[in-house]
Amino acid sequence: MSRRGAQSVDDLVGRAREGDARAVARLISLVEDESPLLREVMAALVPHTGNAQVIGITGSPGVGKSTSTNALVTELRAQHKRVGVLAVDPSSPFSGGALLGDRVRMQDHALDREVYIRSMASRGHLGGLAWATPQALRVLDAAGCDVILVETVGVGQSEVEIAGMADTTMVLLAPGMGDGIQAAKAGILEIGDLYVINKADRDGADQVRRDLRSMLALGERREGAWRPPIVKTVAQTGEGVAEVVVEIDRHREHLESSGEMERRRTRRARDEIEAIAVTALRARWGDVHGHDDLDTLAEAVVSGAKDPYAAADELLQLVSG
Amino acid sequence: MSRRGAQSVDDLVGRAREGDARAVARLISLVEDESPLLREVMAALVPHTGNAQVIGITGSPGVGKSTSTNALVTELRAQHKRVGVLAVDPSSPFSGGALLGDRVRMQDHALDREVYIRSMASRGHLGGLAWATPQALRVLDAAGCDVILVETVGVGQSEVEIAGMADTTMVLLAPGMGDGIQAAKAGILEIGDLYVINKADRDGADQVRRDLRSMLALGERREGAWRPPIVKTVAQTGEGVAEVVVEIDRHREHLESSGEMERRRTRRARDEIEAIAVTALRARWGDVHGHDDLDTLAEAVVSGAKDPYAAADELLQLVSG
Repeated sequence: MSRRGAQSVDDLVGRAREGDARAVARLISLVEDESPLLREVMAALVPHTGNAQVIGITGSPGVGKSTSTNALVTELRAQHKRVGVLAVDPSSPFSGGALLGDRVRMQDHALDREVYIRSMASRGHLGGLAWATPQALRVLDAAGCDVILVETVGVGQSEVEIAGMADTTMVLLAPGMGDGIQAAKAGILEIGDLYVINKADRDGADQVRRDLRSMLALGERREGAWRPPIVKTVAQTGEGVAEVVVEIDRHREHLESSGEMERRRTRRARDEIEAIAVTALRARWGDVHGHDDLDTLAEAVVSGAKDPYAAADELLQLVSG
Repeated sequence: MSRRGAQSVDDLVGRAREGDARAVARLISLVEDESPLLREVMAALVPHTGNAQVIGITGSPGVGKSTSTNALVTELRAQHKRVGVLAVDPSSPFSGGALLGDRVRMQDHALDREVYIRSMASRGHLGGLAWATPQALRVLDAAGCDVILVETVGVGQSEVEIAGMADTTMVLLAPGMGDGIQAAKAGILEIGDLYVINKADRDGADQVRRDLRSMLALGERREGAWRPPIVKTVAQTGEGVAEVVVEIDRHREHLESSGEMERRRTRRARDEIEAIAVTALRARWGDVHGHDDLDTLAEAVVSGAKDPYAAADELLQLVSG
């Protein structure tokens, strides 16, 4: 079995590197399913990675993330780039399933062999996205993608996570989507490498740009630091999207010349290693002792008989014992 | 030092239990600062917990979460309940700071001694909210709060987390905030115990209610299971808010009579114990070896010399060694 597994992994990775979309899909499924083959898969992929620029795309619901992603794919394909799209859905603790929205809108590119599109759902466990997304990115990177667009849904923690995982974080805004405090609350002013005001044909786009510019000006910037540009687009018609790609390229050049690319990728790898280590530990205290011990400890905390720190100590002793 | 620490903790906990707002604030600061005294604090608090009903309040930006929270506090105070409010801001990896929005709007209740209001910022580390929020809830619970309102900002992962932490999850919607697919994407249909359509004086409120009702009807429900009610409110004027409180009480009765309260609280304690154990481990591999080993491992992964699983294995060996 192990020998056969090894053959399949080599074969899969080889076919993925040659651009076989089904092999790519199968590898990402192994990531989502937390397959025991993953160790082997990652070991086989790692030497072939490092080419792709990872672009995180984030913003509130309704700003047009999917439409913008679609328009970016069109523009990047016109430049003969190989493109990966990872749509990261929020955890659904009950269904665990991804919904249709993104896939439906992406059908423009469904038949293009140089575009890989994938929706991912996180399983809601601690570090779910932190664990699975970098591994899916590695699959697409090794498959020869020049650019990988990672679309996250909504605002909040997932947005911060994607900023940690991307080389370039693109924040989408749109007129009429709430006031400045809301934007600031979501922390978007601190994570964007590039701001896109979509639906720029609507009233209020210039006001959004002015507000954004003055809020960005408040932040401190070191000498020689990147100044996030603001681009206006109408993703529906493609207006402004070429300029977004110019800024994406410019940011890549900045990342490489400043050494920031290396720093971001090292940080990303560190987070990934930690997430894998934590997952391994959680599996260990689930598998070895069943969930019985943990349940007993939890009940003692609920009844007030034990504090959670003492319970955590006992759990760790059970694992290392 | 340790003796003095112990005295201070007993004193602080005693004063918090008597309703001293400054002692409550100090204890929550200890949680946010990840104080070494926390173990002692939690051990002192745990025997006095279990009374408070924790209500998670969630919804997209702009639906009126802060205004609704404010209106709920007014209504609960009219019933002489002691109320805690925890406003959980999304991680801001750079500033680590909470913004002003919520506090500003809460000034109606700033001078009421029976209301504790606190904004919390998570520090962006893995499990940040998972780690800090239950401990802050325990402080407010031990301080005699009958109800604790936990307001989360935005949609996405943080929402799912709050559903895990609350006894009752209240999902806010408003007319004109995006179509059904957006709502479904955010996973809100699976987490709500109670749905509130705020800004119900606006056009489209009845349509939102119809859409929501038909989407909720699609979900499977076991016999005797809770059917999430839908309440219309205008939080700005207080309209409908009394009915929300009635439904909150009704849900508490259901949780208690069905045994679901016990199950939810045990699950919550389990998650908390795991989060503390994981945090302890992360501290261990940071403290003992500095970050040098982890950085070296991360660089090896970036260069393609090592796969992340092998790196995680090495990290775990370093910790247990």
